[in-house]
Amino acid sequence: MTSAAIILDEHVAFAVELADIARAVLRENDVARINVSVKPDRSLVTAMDILIEDRLRAMIAARYSLHGIIGEERDWVRPGSEHVWVLDPIDGTTAFIAGMPVYGTLIALAVGGVPRLGIIDIPAIDSRWIGAEGRQTTRNGTPVRVRSCPSLAQAIMTNSNQDYLAPSERPALDRLRAATSARVYGGVSLNYGLLSDGRTDLALDGGQKVFDFAPFRPIVEGAGGIVTDWAGAPLTLESSGQLLGAGDVKVHRQALDLITDLRIAPTVTASA
Amino acid sequence: MTSAAIILDEHVAFAVELADIARAVLRENDVARINVSVKPDRSLVTAMDILIEDRLRAMIAARYSLHGIIGEERDWVRPGSEHVWVLDPIDGTTAFIAGMPVYGTLIALAVGGVPRLGIIDIPAIDSRWIGAEGRQTTRNGTPVRVRSCPSLAQAIMTNSNQDYLAPSERPALDRLRAATSARVYGGVSLNYGLLSDGRTDLALDGGQKVFDFAPFRPIVEGAGGIVTDWAGAPLTLESSGQLLGAGDVKVHRQALDLITDLRIAPTVTASA
Repeated sequence: MTSAAIILDEHVAFAVELADIARAVLRENDVARINVSVKPDRSLVTAMDILIEDRLRAMIAARYSLHGIIGEERDWVRPGSEHVWVLDPIDGTTAFIAGMPVYGTLIALAVGGVPRLGIIDIPAIDSRWIGAEGRQTTRNGTPVRVRSCPSLAQAIMTNSNQDYLAPSERPALDRLRAATSARVYGGVSLNYGLLSDGRTDLALDGGQKVFDFAPFRPIVEGAGGIVTDWAGAPLTLESSGQLLGAGDVKVHRQALDLITDLRIAPTVTASA
Repeated sequence: MTSAAIILDEHVAFAVELADIARAVLRENDVARINVSVKPDRSLVTAMDILIEDRLRAMIAARYSLHGIIGEERDWVRPGSEHVWVLDPIDGTTAFIAGMPVYGTLIALAVGGVPRLGIIDIPAIDSRWIGAEGRQTTRNGTPVRVRSCPSLAQAIMTNSNQDYLAPSERPALDRLRAATSARVYGGVSLNYGLLSDGRTDLALDGGQKVFDFAPFRPIVEGAGGIVTDWAGAPLTLESSGQLLGAGDVKVHRQALDLITDLRIAPTVTASA
């Protein structure tokens, strides 16, 4: 089987159905009046997170009863299956609550432990990136491509939220702040869409869970870029949550050299 | 003269005309193909910044020939005048270049050195806040109001860009990160709109120039909130660029107590 054949057109079409449902639920609800509760870990979660995840899980169970499901809000189902769907109904929950237009829905399909299909859907700006192994990444149906960048010193870098970096990881941000041309903060998953569009050059994040990053590899690679952990390994379901994305492989290498001493081992989260 | 009479309806209507023109120029141009150059200070500036500022300056000169004009891209005109317009054609230039939907146009009118009319216009999310002394702040014509917050520990805080904080100012961010419930980064001027909407509770920024913050006082105060420098003084054209905004005065006081030792003196930039 060639790699292009692992992800079928029906998988892509079904992922789009999931994203459509998530967006419809988000739009049906007035975000200014949502019920907000605070989880013990102090992250903010809304009833809508759970509402959307339950809808998507039901759709997956009905369509692909043997596939696994990993989601932020509920217990994982068969995470060691050959096919595993990874869901984050509202990535950037705090941004969503605050009204910052960068929150989105993340959907991925991993086959053999590797994310090979991904969607980043950002409803506030009506933008959807779709990436799948063997296909060109698109934004709203239009093919996108990363840009080249002569050197790290000329790179525009993004970082979603410094609060997710452990104290031991924090030097990565400070070193790359000093080494790059400009920074844009706060974009959450949108950062990896903009990287794929060729609007930014480097994306640094830490402390990410598998549902926070699962779609990034097929989307960024399908646009000609690279996204790895801080050891330089391409992302899998077991990656550590330390992310480094780049449009230009030279810039990725330069950035990696500055931070790879801060790498941590992959987590083993998706075993059967 | 009552304070409500300082800002006339014609001033508000004219400021809206300026914002309309700025938005039209932004929309006419494909941001993916704009000409980007790098200023000596490494900030990024586009031809569109200058294009918009020149258009707005010409409109002001034609309408109010005796008023002063302060803008980011050109020499200041009569900055000590009783009436001074303050312009930032594209606030969040790096966000604009990167495609992050938080950039905007800032327009303010100061009378007697105090900003009393302000507009924050965020075209990517079709949102415009208008605030004027003696009037209720609106977002897209709908009145908005800050929310109360029981304590700093329950506050959602925003910070636009940590890179604008001097090393001596950086502890303010770290202290308030530790003292608040959640943070949303990267919002630029949008942060002060969301504060006025009652979607966030606290806004911290440093290293801001007068054109970066001039509209915030009339907008935030007109929504029932407070925005000062780190000494607790309400913003004027001579404020230091250290900003602390809050929806709830108790939370503002708690935050101020944690950072006021880091205050710097106001700059004198707007004298005749």
